Amino acid sequence: MRVPFEKLKSEFERILLSIGFNPEKALQCATIFSENSRDGVYTHGLNRFPVFVELVKDGYVNPDAEPSKEHGFGSLEQWNGNSGPGMLNARFCMNRAIDLARENGIGCVAVKNTNHWMRAGTYGWQAAEAGLIGICFTNTIANLPPWGGLDPRLGNNPLVVAVPHKDGHIVLDMAISQYSVGKLNQYKSNNETLPLPGGYDDNGNLSTDAAAVLASQRLLPIGFWKGSGLSLVLDLLATVLSQGNSTAKITQSGKESGVSQVFICIKPADSSTTEPLIDEIISYTKTSRPVEEGSTISYPGENSLKTRERSLRDGVLVDERIWEKVLEIKGIYY
Amino acid sequence: MRVPFEKLKSEFERILLSIGFNPEKALQCATIFSENSRDGVYTHGLNRFPVFVELVKDGYVNPDAEPSKEHGFGSLEQWNGNSGPGMLNARFCMNRAIDLARENGIGCVAVKNTNHWMRAGTYGWQAAEAGLIGICFTNTIANLPPWGGLDPRLGNNPLVVAVPHKDGHIVLDMAISQYSVGKLNQYKSNNETLPLPGGYDDNGNLSTDAAAVLASQRLLPIGFWKGSGLSLVLDLLATVLSQGNSTAKITQSGKESGVSQVFICIKPADSSTTEPLIDEIISYTKTSRPVEEGSTISYPGENSLKTRERSLRDGVLVDERIWEKVLEIKGIYY
Repeated sequence: MRVPFEKLKSEFERILLSIGFNPEKALQCATIFSENSRDGVYTHGLNRFPVFVELVKDGYVNPDAEPSKEHGFGSLEQWNGNSGPGMLNARFCMNRAIDLARENGIGCVAVKNTNHWMRAGTYGWQAAEAGLIGICFTNTIANLPPWGGLDPRLGNNPLVVAVPHKDGHIVLDMAISQYSVGKLNQYKSNNETLPLPGGYDDNGNLSTDAAAVLASQRLLPIGFWKGSGLSLVLDLLATVLSQGNSTAKITQSGKESGVSQVFICIKPADSSTTEPLIDEIISYTKTSRPVEEGSTISYPGENSLKTRERSLRDGVLVDERIWEKVLEIKGIYY
Repeated sequence: MRVPFEKLKSEFERILLSIGFNPEKALQCATIFSENSRDGVYTHGLNRFPVFVELVKDGYVNPDAEPSKEHGFGSLEQWNGNSGPGMLNARFCMNRAIDLARENGIGCVAVKNTNHWMRAGTYGWQAAEAGLIGICFTNTIANLPPWGGLDPRLGNNPLVVAVPHKDGHIVLDMAISQYSVGKLNQYKSNNETLPLPGGYDDNGNLSTDAAAVLASQRLLPIGFWKGSGLSLVLDLLATVLSQGNSTAKITQSGKESGVSQVFICIKPADSSTTEPLIDEIISYTKTSRPVEEGSTISYPGENSLKTRERSLRDGVLVDERIWEKVLEIKGIYY
């Protein structure tokens, strides 16, 4: 089922207003949720919206909280998210990093005590739309074992790198696990085999059986020992730079809230200089003969843009059951 | 066979002096080559030294060249490596990024027209020794197909993230390919099976047969489509920020020279603030039960430090044939 983008957004807005968001924040959050679904990231758009509403109702996300500055030294700043909505804090911090980069070439903003930012790529697109290179990452609850270990001790710590480009920004948005827990659950309930190994089974063998991977809790980091190291250093950077909660602390608290994030912006040269270089790289990459005849090589973000166009033209794809559920959400103030 | 660290260094120094390096540069390069072997990265220490000497003799690396500044805006600078020795240019640029970060919290230096920096981790250790967070990466000649493609169009673009730590710095040093071409060749000539899939064979199946992967040229990026995207964005950042050669240009030139690199430094808070956070993360990670009984979980850089201690105590491990060859290298000036 497809729903017009504006309908999706106004429904989110109605509900957010009813649970204590002021009009400006309700519009901003509604826009991010509906844009995430619009770009095809349904897991962090409509599908996540009911969970978000519960977190607000339960007091884990405070719609009134504003980020406050803790420290600043030149182009490096630490902020406190004060348990506000993760999307608004992240949007604010990337804007702040954009300003710092415009003033000084590069800027870095670390934020502690914030909440889930939903789709990581949102803030990469934000930087690229402003004409800047954006890099950001977050820590999470532990859901991956370190290399050589059995028990989850590392987060899947999504990482974003965005490069502005006139023909469609290049936006890499990747978690450090090969497949997310959500994706594994989806394969499990559909009784489908993973296209590539997603972790180990209880016997210690690489497996494409999502149920077996979920049972062992041994999800695979990208590149085996390499992703394990990458996840660890991203948590170190987020925690040290924000002086906030580590994956260890978040996991021990039992709730994925109060996370730490980093936003880096870099101001590239004028597009007259950079665009020919970007074109050169993209067009060279696309000359690789496709594995499957007739298919083409895509860069990160290219398909999001296609999904976006289709969503705006024909409506945003929604899971009908979740959409019906959202239409029925009642506020707490009326 | 083991050789004292100082012997290795003085032999490198002797040869570098004989091929046109001034005393200061000869000592700096000799130190980096011998430290790479000392830390166990033999492929970019002794084993690579004869190749480096040939590149100098053939004029691809100019020992007299000094980096020159092309542009600067606040904490972001572009430099030209002027075809000088890659290790010295990289060392210079990381020092420059350290200075910028000390002045302004964060600094970024991009360099074009430089040469292979040997061990990527060298410059991460350099930042960490100075008490700063260091991030650096380089582009390379194409040696990986993009996801969905058959022909190599992406570099393995090594990426380093280093965090200073009193008990031994955390230094992630990883190429984006699961195994390097050198490592695959080693498994092939030893007739050994790869411990994990390293790419595809000619039939399009994931394979642990190094010879089959080398034959198909379909080496695996870490995390399949994810590493493919990561390699692409690292090349974009290096090329756009330095305004230098892309993997496309380097590959088309047929020689892995004139590469582009980026060095980012960030000044963390005082160690009294950061060390407890780092200890918390490391100690939590190490509580994961090991897959193999009796083994322990290590963080990136931890084993390098153990190898370093052993090398300084008992001598640096060398490949005897290569060592003999190096002892016989004659200069071009005497």
